[in-house]
Amino acid sequence: MLTDLFTPSVQHWLDIAGIFVFAISGALLGVRKNFDVFGMAVLAEVTALGGGLFRDLVIGAVPPAAFTDLGYFLTPLIATLIVFFLHPEVERITAAVNAFDAAGLGLFCVTGTVKAYGHGLGLTQSATLGLATAVGGGVLRDVLAHEVPSLLRWDRDLYAVPAMAGAALAALLLREDALHGPTIAVPVVTACGLRLLAMHFHWRAPRAWHRRSAAAEEEATRG
Amino acid sequence: MLTDLFTPSVQHWLDIAGIFVFAISGALLGVRKNFDVFGMAVLAEVTALGGGLFRDLVIGAVPPAAFTDLGYFLTPLIATLIVFFLHPEVERITAAVNAFDAAGLGLFCVTGTVKAYGHGLGLTQSATLGLATAVGGGVLRDVLAHEVPSLLRWDRDLYAVPAMAGAALAALLLREDALHGPTIAVPVVTACGLRLLAMHFHWRAPRAWHRRSAAAEEEATRG
Amino acid sequence: MLTDLFTPSVQHWLDIAGIFVFAISGALLGVRKNFDVFGMAVLAEVTALGGGLFRDLVIGAVPPAAFTDLGYFLTPLIATLIVFFLHPEVERITAAVNAFDAAGLGLFCVTGTVKAYGHGLGLTQSATLGLATAVGGGVLRDVLAHEVPSLLRWDRDLYAVPAMAGAALAALLLREDALHGPTIAVPVVTACGLRLLAMHFHWRAPRAWHRRSAAAEEEATRG
Repeated sequence: MLTDLFTPSVQHWLDIAGIFVFAISGALLGVRKNFDVFGMAVLAEVTALGGGLFRDLVIGAVPPAAFTDLGYFLTPLIATLIVFFLHPEVERITAAVNAFDAAGLGLFCVTGTVKAYGHGLGLTQSATLGLATAVGGGVLRDVLAHEVPSLLRWDRDLYAVPAMAGAALAALLLREDALHGPTIAVPVVTACGLRLLAMHFHWRAPRAWHRRSAAAEEEATRG
Repeated sequence: MLTDLFTPSVQHWLDIAGIFVFAISGALLGVRKNFDVFGMAVLAEVTALGGGLFRDLVIGAVPPAAFTDLGYFLTPLIATLIVFFLHPEVERITAAVNAFDAAGLGLFCVTGTVKAYGHGLGLTQSATLGLATAVGGGVLRDVLAHEVPSLLRWDRDLYAVPAMAGAALAALLLREDALHGPTIAVPVVTACGLRLLAMHFHWRAPRAWHRRSAAAEEEATRG
Repeated sequence: MLTDLFTPSVQHWLDIAGIFVFAISGALLGVRKNFDVFGMAVLAEVTALGGGLFRDLVIGAVPPAAFTDLGYFLTPLIATLIVFFLHPEVERITAAVNAFDAAGLGLFCVTGTVKAYGHGLGLTQSATLGLATAVGGGVLRDVLAHEVPSLLRWDRDLYAVPAMAGAALAALLLREDALHGPTIAVPVVTACGLRLLAMHFHWRAPRAWHRRSAAAEEEATRG
């Protein structure tokens, strides 16, 4: 269980931090989509809590943490108010928001993996659910906001891969029984660092081969 | 539990009524989106049962009521047939349909809150889940129909706020242990009445400040 | 339980086959939507496992099979790799893919019905959940890919009706206690065959009456 890895209060505040930054990204999308303040709050809640809610439903941890811990529920509302009143200022620090989002990604993929493993899932499945915890909220956010999920788009910097790496590393450490207290920082920092590098160097994933060869043919025809 | 608040049969018929009006709204959207009769039925079922299904999964009441009570499942099919054959007549009484929808909203936000509280959730969380019960089906309906959820749009009359008020009032009455038989009408009528007022006076919620000041600046530039 | 109907290994390989063909359809949509290889993998997983995941959450079979059986999880990744490298070849055999998809539809609607019934649901509800198992993955695929679910569109050949027929037939056989070993082929082949016929003859479902009469009027005005 998570409580064996961290002191509960440290774990709790790490979770709150991740929830807060994800909620900011949800509320900002609400502003960009021209939603009202309640729409912003819904997007903030869904982005911040959706991934963990899915994880808890899958492992049978009901009621999910999102509905038992009042802080989890109130944090996105605070994030919504901040974006509502300080929206231009928040937009201006997009780089900072992205860095926080990377931190949230790193944190959620690891805590999701650990929680799933603690509920008896296999290592591969735990890592998968850790990945789903980290990216699920963003997918729900985009679906509700009527956008193509940015997770799926080829023209976005790698997002799933860093989370995958962090979740896989956490699973490996769990298998070696080497994930205690400070070592949990290793997969978190790995995922967060890879995401920051992916944003900085605009790392992209390849699309199916046909597309590229078709484009090459087109160029050859033109030339 | 709900059975302590109402006689079971009264509760059941109130639920069926709410399911029916929500199903009508789902089937009507199916017509407007040019879906076939099965698409209409899927939208009707999802709109009517989606919110309660989410609530039951969250509180761990499985199988959910939607899959144990045959009447809950068949009512949306009857609503679909009515819309299928009498669609122009149903459209003509849109005002009546909206009034019924307001009644469904009021009913679902209260029964959702009560059921969540009966399963051991805190008061705030119960009210939140009551709100999700009331608006969840409509959000799923819009996502499946490939529309921006009308819940999130700023140019629609208040929908979440009346449900929030009803759920919060129900939670307050639960805390005071004052929600028995007839008093349940108080939050239901409050939510329903607020929704009817919001539709009549076109109450809207504000958007983030930046947008409005940008619009004001634009006007100032023009003037 | 399913294990009473089939030997476990036969059931397992039938499931894997259904998962594989559904995953192919998800990965192909990912190519058409210009997603990268991870987007393709997400769509493949969701299409193949989404319906069964929903069924398992509803009947309370957690963690769902998708998260306990490693083969269920790895099969869509293999399908993704095949589509990634051999996409033009896979597109060329669309007819074959569609035939496999029909087989998956037939299989999933029956095994979904049987599993739901084994968990104590009524016959109508089991058939409904069987239908949801068969079509749920495709709906999730289309929602994530930001498309109108093809299940709901009137201009697509019947998809839900064959699954409905198969699920209903399976429920009838369950009621008569006549669903053992070989007889399970009856509803599977019925659903699969109806789907193949629907594709061949372009069977469509009707839309609400108003639309057709409006179109007829328009034609009359023109004439």
